[in-house]
Amino acid sequence: MRRADRGYRLAQLATEVAAELRGDPDQEIRGVATLEDAGSGDIAFLANRRYRTQLAATGASAVILQPADAAACPVDCLVTANPYLAYARIADLLFPTPVCGGGVHPSAVVAPGARIDATAWVGPLCVVEDGAEIGPGAHIGPGSLVGAGARIGAGTRLVARVVVWNASVVGSRCILHPGAVVGSDGFGNANDGGRWVKVPQLGRVVIGDDVEIGANTTVDRGSLRDTVIADGVRLDNLIQVGHNVIIGAHTAAAAFVGISGSTVIGSRCTLGGAAGFAGHLTIADDVHVTGMAMVTHSLHEPGSYSSGIPAIPSREWRRNVARFQHLDELTRRVRALEAGLGGAAGVEDAMGD
Amino acid sequence: MRRADRGYRLAQLATEVAAELRGDPDQEIRGVATLEDAGSGDIAFLANRRYRTQLAATGASAVILQPADAAACPVDCLVTANPYLAYARIADLLFPTPVCGGGVHPSAVVAPGARIDATAWVGPLCVVEDGAEIGPGAHIGPGSLVGAGARIGAGTRLVARVVVWNASVVGSRCILHPGAVVGSDGFGNANDGGRWVKVPQLGRVVIGDDVEIGANTTVDRGSLRDTVIADGVRLDNLIQVGHNVIIGAHTAAAAFVGISGSTVIGSRCTLGGAAGFAGHLTIADDVHVTGMAMVTHSLHEPGSYSSGIPAIPSREWRRNVARFQHLDELTRRVRALEAGLGGAAGVEDAMGD
Amino acid sequence: MRRADRGYRLAQLATEVAAELRGDPDQEIRGVATLEDAGSGDIAFLANRRYRTQLAATGASAVILQPADAAACPVDCLVTANPYLAYARIADLLFPTPVCGGGVHPSAVVAPGARIDATAWVGPLCVVEDGAEIGPGAHIGPGSLVGAGARIGAGTRLVARVVVWNASVVGSRCILHPGAVVGSDGFGNANDGGRWVKVPQLGRVVIGDDVEIGANTTVDRGSLRDTVIADGVRLDNLIQVGHNVIIGAHTAAAAFVGISGSTVIGSRCTLGGAAGFAGHLTIADDVHVTGMAMVTHSLHEPGSYSSGIPAIPSREWRRNVARFQHLDELTRRVRALEAGLGGAAGVEDAMGD
Repeated sequence: MRRADRGYRLAQLATEVAAELRGDPDQEIRGVATLEDAGSGDIAFLANRRYRTQLAATGASAVILQPADAAACPVDCLVTANPYLAYARIADLLFPTPVCGGGVHPSAVVAPGARIDATAWVGPLCVVEDGAEIGPGAHIGPGSLVGAGARIGAGTRLVARVVVWNASVVGSRCILHPGAVVGSDGFGNANDGGRWVKVPQLGRVVIGDDVEIGANTTVDRGSLRDTVIADGVRLDNLIQVGHNVIIGAHTAAAAFVGISGSTVIGSRCTLGGAAGFAGHLTIADDVHVTGMAMVTHSLHEPGSYSSGIPAIPSREWRRNVARFQHLDELTRRVRALEAGLGGAAGVEDAMGD
Repeated sequence: MRRADRGYRLAQLATEVAAELRGDPDQEIRGVATLEDAGSGDIAFLANRRYRTQLAATGASAVILQPADAAACPVDCLVTANPYLAYARIADLLFPTPVCGGGVHPSAVVAPGARIDATAWVGPLCVVEDGAEIGPGAHIGPGSLVGAGARIGAGTRLVARVVVWNASVVGSRCILHPGAVVGSDGFGNANDGGRWVKVPQLGRVVIGDDVEIGANTTVDRGSLRDTVIADGVRLDNLIQVGHNVIIGAHTAAAAFVGISGSTVIGSRCTLGGAAGFAGHLTIADDVHVTGMAMVTHSLHEPGSYSSGIPAIPSREWRRNVARFQHLDELTRRVRALEAGLGGAAGVEDAMGD
Repeated sequence: MRRADRGYRLAQLATEVAAELRGDPDQEIRGVATLEDAGSGDIAFLANRRYRTQLAATGASAVILQPADAAACPVDCLVTANPYLAYARIADLLFPTPVCGGGVHPSAVVAPGARIDATAWVGPLCVVEDGAEIGPGAHIGPGSLVGAGARIGAGTRLVARVVVWNASVVGSRCILHPGAVVGSDGFGNANDGGRWVKVPQLGRVVIGDDVEIGANTTVDRGSLRDTVIADGVRLDNLIQVGHNVIIGAHTAAAAFVGISGSTVIGSRCTLGGAAGFAGHLTIADDVHVTGMAMVTHSLHEPGSYSSGIPAIPSREWRRNVARFQHLDELTRRVRALEAGLGGAAGVEDAMGD
């Protein structure tokens, strides 16, 4: 439950999100909350079926919901096809991100050759190196490092302790969260008789507009070409993007996704948490991969893909795992049975029980 | 092998950890070491059966061990039901964490509105923002960032380069390791005709007392409610805790554990390395999940749960994987055999071999 | 495509990498590029069979390739058994890492007891604590922290915002990438009647020469002994190395590899992305583990090991997973069939379809 500095009339909110207002247009909304926690002055939303039972008893002053739920709503409501989207816009209206105004904190270390727009903010203990460019209205939060020749677009926000390195380019209106590293070297090693020799990483990272990159996520620079993250991509925390990877527009990846070098991910994909992608693959547009899936081949058709086996009680799991290790043999035994050889097939059950 | 600045008589150590002393009470102990490495003046411990064979030849001056092992001990010993626990306490006595004393390093950037207890230490190149509170005896190590309105409890230690952001609350006597990020935005995105719209993340992170958070681990703030980590929780390195997650008291999670948004983990659970939890689950108290398990459903009963298949030689693995991809078909073929249809069932072996 | 500050004659490059030159020794090379992107003045390389079709149409002035490909090369070439290695050396020659020269940036905070070689560079907003030693030609990039008693070897490069803590030792000519944490506490907890008691972590991290450690990777200090990373090891981004782990020389690990405490990895191993190792294992030299494999037992023989099942369309996957959970039962049914009991075995298909 959060209370805003200024309130909005319900009618204003309806207009802002193009929703149908049912109820008192002058109702004042000052806060957002869940259906369960909301009190007077709060607006709540119903977007997930599992919370529908909480509608009747809500203490909210208003609820954002779909047409099918409006009749059951005991209070004023904003009716829209996409309540979660309307909620996102209203929450942003009530609780806008604070703006720092232009300037450079005296503790920041800015190279003489860096170009910082007068309306950009460079916070305490930042480093901006030679040839870097910071665009209008950009916000470089405390402890962030912007490397030589890197470019930060208009209105982009490095929340705190972000590293943008090696001439990386970040577009406009992006958000990079604490600990994110953009432009680290890719993992390139040539083998010289058993010893590794580093392969210089000479490409950049090029990030489009309206991209969000999570805490402690790493995006490697390309080896020769660039690593590219297109407009509107969403990367959660602790993701690894290898060198030369290309991620198409509006693709979203959850935490721990790993994308190996030179793999190309399509647009509008969703990648579940901890899904892993081998290198040099091509993944089509509109592919959805469930959590912890292991993707070892290119996926040329849109659709949903999975692997991995859900956890069960360890005792049962141990039995099934033991059987799995003999699955090839089991299949041969079935074939022998089908051929009429039955127990005479001479293939033994290595489990021996 | 480590040598302490001051030694302890063995009798003192026995008293401190309430162990039975067998041997010379005046034996002076100045160091701790493994059974194998220990020399004169060192105390070692035997807690893991696999090291029992090293007892006879140890060079230690004393050994902490269980009653059953005492007879076989060639040197003085401290006898206790839990040798590892006694060792932990003795090691802490011999090698206490250095204390910095109160003060603020001149290179730190502290907002005028921050309240820092006179006995707390704020190290070099830290940032403490407006409205933040640092409690008595807290230690804010070099390069750490404490965001606006965040609270750090008494005796809590941010080792180095920790970020505590967005009005997060950290209890007393916690330890946060380098690179940890507490209070980063959760991963909330509404879809607007194929484009993602950020859902403002307005909740906090609330961490109890005696919690430890590992290096480069990330804990996201709640979306509306708070993300909560209860007393005594242990999080290893590189863990992801999503928004609105609740972790019960004294639960421990190993590296790479990922907990998706709004999942509730019980108390006294142990979560093996790289175990993954889908969102909106409920995990009971006293659940133990083995490493790399994929948890996609709520677990309502205490006990041990597993998934994943141990690595075997790649050649064998390839054969079994190929069979797994036809497991549904194989099951149907077995049913056909059971029904007496045998090879006449008309279900073909897609492997074709 | 990158252009160097100075060019090299093709004959010089051939000599540097001991390759056979076919073509004009005076050809000037100023850049490197892929076969597809290369233009006049660039040298490209052909090391991966999948790019062989691009050779005929390349715009490169010269190509590094194997003897078998030389006849098909439309331009000058450098012929060598290992084109990728030769490329690595030539790229390093054309694009050497810039050197900062010795000195300490005025914004760095260096303890009086730290010893910094006159030829080492300590960048802006670094912290070097008491008793730390920085060797000749070392480069401590912006925002890095070198803890008390830590040692950084000659020519080693902490790129930016690296933490080397707790008396860790880093050898010569290493590269540590942004966000890497070396010397964080291991995960040691003793249980005291349901509550965790921290086990002091007293060992160090000892890193050999020519080691590379990726962005946001964490390496924990030993509990009593040291955590050891031998010469020439390569660790990608977001890897976790637990306490007391030993990694043998010239082993390479891809992103998200997790190595639990006290496991010993041999030399010249390759560990695929997100492979996980349980604790207290021994892995032989020359073991190769494929991506996402779950290693729960020691591997005493060299060779390739795997687990995990590649992603398939979710609908098919759901069917196979359901069958897997009854694999033990299926095996028993096959045995019953083999024993001639067939459908009379009384074991039912729990799927019921």
